Amino acid sequence: MRLRTSCDLKFEIFEPTPFILMLRPRSGSQQWVEREEYKITPSTPVVEFTDNYGNLCQRLIAQPGMFSISTSSDVVTSNFIDQGFDSPFVEIQNLPDAVLSYLLPSRYCESDCFNEMGAAITEGQLMGYNQVSAITNWLRENIEYLPGSNNEPLSAIQVNNRQFGVCRDLAHLGIALCRSLSIPARIVVGYLHNLEPMDMHAWFEAYIGNRWYTFDATQVDSPGGYVVLGFGRDAADVAIFNQFGPSVFPIEHLVKVEERL
Amino acid sequence: MRLRTSCDLKFEIFEPTPFILMLRPRSGSQQWVEREEYKITPSTPVVEFTDNYGNLCQRLIAQPGMFSISTSSDVVTSNFIDQGFDSPFVEIQNLPDAVLSYLLPSRYCESDCFNEMGAAITEGQLMGYNQVSAITNWLRENIEYLPGSNNEPLSAIQVNNRQFGVCRDLAHLGIALCRSLSIPARIVVGYLHNLEPMDMHAWFEAYIGNRWYTFDATQVDSPGGYVVLGFGRDAADVAIFNQFGPSVFPIEHLVKVEERL
Amino acid sequence: MRLRTSCDLKFEIFEPTPFILMLRPRSGSQQWVEREEYKITPSTPVVEFTDNYGNLCQRLIAQPGMFSISTSSDVVTSNFIDQGFDSPFVEIQNLPDAVLSYLLPSRYCESDCFNEMGAAITEGQLMGYNQVSAITNWLRENIEYLPGSNNEPLSAIQVNNRQFGVCRDLAHLGIALCRSLSIPARIVVGYLHNLEPMDMHAWFEAYIGNRWYTFDATQVDSPGGYVVLGFGRDAADVAIFNQFGPSVFPIEHLVKVEERL
Amino acid sequence: MRLRTSCDLKFEIFEPTPFILMLRPRSGSQQWVEREEYKITPSTPVVEFTDNYGNLCQRLIAQPGMFSISTSSDVVTSNFIDQGFDSPFVEIQNLPDAVLSYLLPSRYCESDCFNEMGAAITEGQLMGYNQVSAITNWLRENIEYLPGSNNEPLSAIQVNNRQFGVCRDLAHLGIALCRSLSIPARIVVGYLHNLEPMDMHAWFEAYIGNRWYTFDATQVDSPGGYVVLGFGRDAADVAIFNQFGPSVFPIEHLVKVEERL
Repeated sequence: MRLRTSCDLKFEIFEPTPFILMLRPRSGSQQWVEREEYKITPSTPVVEFTDNYGNLCQRLIAQPGMFSISTSSDVVTSNFIDQGFDSPFVEIQNLPDAVLSYLLPSRYCESDCFNEMGAAITEGQLMGYNQVSAITNWLRENIEYLPGSNNEPLSAIQVNNRQFGVCRDLAHLGIALCRSLSIPARIVVGYLHNLEPMDMHAWFEAYIGNRWYTFDATQVDSPGGYVVLGFGRDAADVAIFNQFGPSVFPIEHLVKVEERL
Repeated sequence: MRLRTSCDLKFEIFEPTPFILMLRPRSGSQQWVEREEYKITPSTPVVEFTDNYGNLCQRLIAQPGMFSISTSSDVVTSNFIDQGFDSPFVEIQNLPDAVLSYLLPSRYCESDCFNEMGAAITEGQLMGYNQVSAITNWLRENIEYLPGSNNEPLSAIQVNNRQFGVCRDLAHLGIALCRSLSIPARIVVGYLHNLEPMDMHAWFEAYIGNRWYTFDATQVDSPGGYVVLGFGRDAADVAIFNQFGPSVFPIEHLVKVEERL
Repeated sequence: MRLRTSCDLKFEIFEPTPFILMLRPRSGSQQWVEREEYKITPSTPVVEFTDNYGNLCQRLIAQPGMFSISTSSDVVTSNFIDQGFDSPFVEIQNLPDAVLSYLLPSRYCESDCFNEMGAAITEGQLMGYNQVSAITNWLRENIEYLPGSNNEPLSAIQVNNRQFGVCRDLAHLGIALCRSLSIPARIVVGYLHNLEPMDMHAWFEAYIGNRWYTFDATQVDSPGGYVVLGFGRDAADVAIFNQFGPSVFPIEHLVKVEERL
Repeated sequence: MRLRTSCDLKFEIFEPTPFILMLRPRSGSQQWVEREEYKITPSTPVVEFTDNYGNLCQRLIAQPGMFSISTSSDVVTSNFIDQGFDSPFVEIQNLPDAVLSYLLPSRYCESDCFNEMGAAITEGQLMGYNQVSAITNWLRENIEYLPGSNNEPLSAIQVNNRQFGVCRDLAHLGIALCRSLSIPARIVVGYLHNLEPMDMHAWFEAYIGNRWYTFDATQVDSPGGYVVLGFGRDAADVAIFNQFGPSVFPIEHLVKVEERL
């Protein structure tokens, strides 16, 4: 599937404001970026760097006045996410070094507090893919997906208490449960074709059978059409924009995903 | 100052147990490792790797039975920690890429929740070193340092509520307060000469005036004699041992630091 | 200056052939990629990775038949390259770790053989920028720039013997002479506005006064309009395509650079 | 096998001289460093860093006068090097990213010039381990191993012309031949138990069947007892000391390797 994504942001800036953005998709093993645009108005010096997780990040200082970012990409991605029923748990000793940090608790995924719950939800499951599949199903049945219900990320503990959350929050709980079972898990931020209502999206991946698999508790079946912007331990790592100094909120924020034939 | 450190751990293992250890000090800009020993009994295959923060980590599977780790090092470190009163805050746009991740909230340092408190504690201070110094003094006066008061790490919010904690917990609150001011801060785990009672120690560093400075709210004055084992965002990153599977606790844990003339 | 670059390659493939390509420009401190396209026909699975020098590389296996690659980008770059007369030599001990490998001899830059020649060419020059400027002038006067004169890279020794070469070859000799003076130097491959005849281009950078400066012995004055595709120690690191197995040569190779107003 | 290695170097320094040293063995998948000492006299500030190949390097400025380095280690390594007859060639597309740079020609391994020779030597061999084994046997029979025959590294082309060389030179030719067959190969510098005459040693590794295998054309059979100090593309990357400014040669250079029971 060939998708055209776009994300336009507009801010009103009152004093020089440093931004770190994560809005340039990378080609990798799961997607190919055929075309990509990234415009900043007014023209502003930008430095791009690669963070600890391999994401391309853009650093700049927005000057007072209107400041807008306009990005777009054509990405080839698969029609259906891979499923891997019965794919086995990878023993800690066999995990690649780079995957190990996704076993640790993080800001919004207090995996150290979910040992019993993780064990209960996955009881009787074959270790590996089936456990994560059980976790995802449990999230679908027990945590209400309420887009727009909050702005600040909820941690796994908070989501579990409230029983509802946005996509990012469900991902946090899913990740914490996986890690409680020693399954490496990470958050993914990006776009999803046909998401309702359309917006940036977040889901999670778990490392099973020597590769990463995609899981998304906000969707009933397993569509494809995912475009990745960034990976991280949780929402703290993958903000599409981090801004420093007095808070500035986008006065416009427009996200689109269309299929290209 | 030349210090001889040692850390001996002994476990009784009941089933094959993966461990990730962080017990080998690295030479760097602030310490020189002259001698170093690392013995594992019984002899066990170990793979060493470098994590995201530059720490040397050792990965192994302990087999059932007694399992002991014996490490020792002779390290040259400075007699007094550097102080940098009036050293300036580094603007976000001028921070090295590798330092940026230390601005983000993490598992035990919910810096996103400390904006007002950070501002209040540092009111009237010159931006930079003096702010972190004010934070450290505030910790000394307001949070009781109670070695051995808990085993599980407390997050900054928890420490702030309880008003007491171990070294690691005070560091978490200090780090969260620094990050709330856009000052990069990281936890450090290692040894401290003359620590009372002797044990592994944790403190924090803040990035000011284009370098890292050491801060330790558990000590009244500013002694030197620090030996670093590892750096990270918070305690989740710098466990001297992470163990997977059914919990195993050390039945012996002996730490020593002596000066060598 | 806003440039639109394009590079189109077409191959006839007779057996499955692995390729590693370096045709995606990265935004960095010296250029901003506003738009970028990368199409492969027929559609082929590609994995993108980052090499040791920070370049984005694309790995794929071309299947038998016609195989074409079509890339294009809009890049904002400066109108004039920075010059830094009198910028000082950086003492070895003050070089960033990541720059050190650019001091060592490499496949096509046998810097260990140019100590006397490097000293002679730069005699009387202030250490640093002026030395590299003297080297570049010496190249302009002594080594004839003959585009198309050879296909295989010449090493610094070979260029020095032949007294002529393509852009890449002149860069090799310039780099070897810089390194012989303990000045870190690296090759750059990319595009140059108004290059005659138009083609991919190569030049070099030297690390002076705590930053990289651009030098190009093939151009008389110091125009701007450079677009970087990749950095490396020499031509061995920055082939725009490396192909494995029986040799395959492009049957079409079209490069364009236009200014966009 | 548990080996005690030592390397002592003494220099007479006439002006402040920057050094980069590579004398600290790392624990990895093939060796475990139980004890390690590294003393510098007179005491000198040192900064340790990790290079592009994962080696620990030490950077310092030696001051005028006598300057000595004394290193020692106890390392557990295997009694016999692993052999992998019939282990298969890894297709380019399946190589890990980090291995790819070991396919390229480098300063002393002009692999681009050995395609025919590499094919001839390995004719009829199963692709993979058996090819590298054939190359190693060919080196044993055709290139005389003459310890001490030269100080400066010879490139693969030079060794092939002279028909003799030191350990490092034989490794260069072996590596160039491997790479000419698209087999990743790297130089290794370190110690070898029972080497005659005792000195630092160099050999090579080739990537076959998804792991690195050790090859050493200077030894008739396949003993174990190897202790690795560093890896690289060729001798340019793995000097145990690189020194900048006017040349300084060790006035003492003592290497020992003993078995410890």
